[in-house]
Amino acid sequence: MARAVDDYALLVALVSEQRQVSRADLARLAGLSRSTVSLRVDEILKTGLIRESGNGPSTGGRKPVVLTINPEVGVVLGVDLGATHCHVAAADLAGDTLAIHSGAVDIGEGPVAVLNEVLRHCAGVLEACGRTTSDVLAVGVGIPGPVEFSTGTVVRPPIMPGWDDFVVSEYIGRLFDAPVVVDNDVNVMALGEYVERGQRDTSLLFIKIGTGIGCGIVSYGELHRGLDGAAGDIGHTRLPDHDDTVCACGNTGCLEAVASGAAIARQLRAEGRDVQLTSDVVRLAQSGDRDVMYRVRRAGEHIGSVLATLVNFYNPETIIIGGSLAALNDDLLAPIRGVVYQRATTLATRRFRLEITTLGWQAGVLGAVELARRAALSPDAVGRRLVPAQTEI
Amino acid sequence: MARAVDDYALLVALVSEQRQVSRADLARLAGLSRSTVSLRVDEILKTGLIRESGNGPSTGGRKPVVLTINPEVGVVLGVDLGATHCHVAAADLAGDTLAIHSGAVDIGEGPVAVLNEVLRHCAGVLEACGRTTSDVLAVGVGIPGPVEFSTGTVVRPPIMPGWDDFVVSEYIGRLFDAPVVVDNDVNVMALGEYVERGQRDTSLLFIKIGTGIGCGIVSYGELHRGLDGAAGDIGHTRLPDHDDTVCACGNTGCLEAVASGAAIARQLRAEGRDVQLTSDVVRLAQSGDRDVMYRVRRAGEHIGSVLATLVNFYNPETIIIGGSLAALNDDLLAPIRGVVYQRATTLATRRFRLEITTLGWQAGVLGAVELARRAALSPDAVGRRLVPAQTEI
Repeated sequence: MARAVDDYALLVALVSEQRQVSRADLARLAGLSRSTVSLRVDEILKTGLIRESGNGPSTGGRKPVVLTINPEVGVVLGVDLGATHCHVAAADLAGDTLAIHSGAVDIGEGPVAVLNEVLRHCAGVLEACGRTTSDVLAVGVGIPGPVEFSTGTVVRPPIMPGWDDFVVSEYIGRLFDAPVVVDNDVNVMALGEYVERGQRDTSLLFIKIGTGIGCGIVSYGELHRGLDGAAGDIGHTRLPDHDDTVCACGNTGCLEAVASGAAIARQLRAEGRDVQLTSDVVRLAQSGDRDVMYRVRRAGEHIGSVLATLVNFYNPETIIIGGSLAALNDDLLAPIRGVVYQRATTLATRRFRLEITTLGWQAGVLGAVELARRAALSPDAVGRRLVPAQTEI
Repeated sequence: MARAVDDYALLVALVSEQRQVSRADLARLAGLSRSTVSLRVDEILKTGLIRESGNGPSTGGRKPVVLTINPEVGVVLGVDLGATHCHVAAADLAGDTLAIHSGAVDIGEGPVAVLNEVLRHCAGVLEACGRTTSDVLAVGVGIPGPVEFSTGTVVRPPIMPGWDDFVVSEYIGRLFDAPVVVDNDVNVMALGEYVERGQRDTSLLFIKIGTGIGCGIVSYGELHRGLDGAAGDIGHTRLPDHDDTVCACGNTGCLEAVASGAAIARQLRAEGRDVQLTSDVVRLAQSGDRDVMYRVRRAGEHIGSVLATLVNFYNPETIIIGGSLAALNDDLLAPIRGVVYQRATTLATRRFRLEITTLGWQAGVLGAVELARRAALSPDAVGRRLVPAQTEI
């Protein structure tokens, strides 16, 4: 039940959350005495992570000195790696983006070639904001496959040939004297949406609907990864009446085999249409193609039936729909909402929100920045910057 | 991200968790300096919540003084209220049960009559362990219906006529100068199972299969109640091929309408059998009645298909099956497991456990004790016992 908490990391995190805060407010927020907070803050100031500025709102007397995160101390890097793209951002410790570079990659070229390209973009964004690798406080990476989070290792990825067992965090970490944190792309996008919405949602599900279907879960600000990091794998939920549809996993009737972009393209090809990619599905639906629109609506209904189950089970505050099919906006959202509101309980849908992403492709790279920002403000990272002799009073 | 933490409550909670702990170990576990811990512990000792004893394991020099929860300081009460029963336990602050009383109630008699009966049992267990109402540090209550947790109010309960909008915590609280915490019975049972299993599971789902079907979710030791307290409502998940079965909720094909004890009894009545209650279903299945066994197996398979979805989504460490049908043990468990292992992903089921409760009816009352114990050790409750002038240094 109880969890050991490091005062220093707590104080730095509170300064980051509040943007600007006086020592008195910090003591109140942290539940610590003012004298303890003063001692701790003096030490943290020496690390350069936070700084003083004199522009706090006056409450009658002289203006109080406020504390803010020090954007000068260094930067964090966020990497969003997809099957065919990579986006890399540099941001300050408050999470404000300083530079973003994007480029094409081919995930099939294997980890060394692809990650060297990622590192080239890292160098690019650092140069763009006048920084060097030694200024990097942490790196966050999202990749399109399963990751053992604790070690940053790729685990049996379905679409990443040559990556199995590759330790991404180690390869990237050789260039930086800083923690490198790696997670799967859907988790990272969920975190990006959570940050974008002001970090207020008690729980948020991010549903990625593209060539596949996956889900990221944020609960009280933390990613829920589950016992084996397998949480969010909703693509293999069994749908009614589809036992004739074989899925790549070996089962039949899986949501992903019936309602993903790849599944819709396959259904259209079976009708003699020349539709190869998820992007073709999106383009045709946007052009108003009736057959394609019909398939998208059916897919939305199937997705809605699975989401209704999750709404009943988890009673989330917010569900955000993203991924490449999210470009269809209301044409995808309406059938999903229709089934969710029909099948989920009244109580669970009374206040909850079901929306299309407004971040689009940026969700991944902003989530990766947040992963990195959290790593840079973790108790371990803050502790390493403190002068050792001063951590005990 | 950051959360204000009260040093005092953290230290008390750590002493409770560790059973016995030295000041030095406490400092290490809490991430606080030894001098801070010494100051805080001196103040907490004055509250009577913890006490010193001299029997810690020696590490070479003199035996260190260890701190333990003080069982003398008072007791907590746990109440498990069902449609026809009530169990009330008194326990010490370490969670060890001192006395349990059980009795029959009829929930339909309304809140005043039923809660007066509950209070009679409370007086009974207090007398049994030589205590009075003024010794009660907190009361935890589980009731068979939806509760607004923050206020302890019953909200539109399906099987509790006359209870809608009744503030259970207030009615019980009039007798005690202590916090009263109220939650629904399935959440309370989930907490009981979590405690019974040593509070180690990163996430645990408790599935109650009786006249209805519900689920309680424990995530990192805390109950996940969801945005509106509606989490765990898996009874209204839509099943394939059952759109002709009408549910009490107004939808068709709900899990509860097809696979609960009440549903099985209804199916058997439709075949001309005289089966009224869930207890009849259990008795007939235990006697080896073939038709009843067939229905139980089908029900297990349907429950398994819903649990497979939850395993993929949440990747829990443990699922415990409870409720009155759990008395059927392997006859219920085998068909559930069969479908879960068939439909959930390999990764998500590699290490997870799916088991029948070993606590049985005690899960509810032990969970209610734990709710009370947590309330008694909350920052608010600990703070109120501290001498005000000494909380600031």
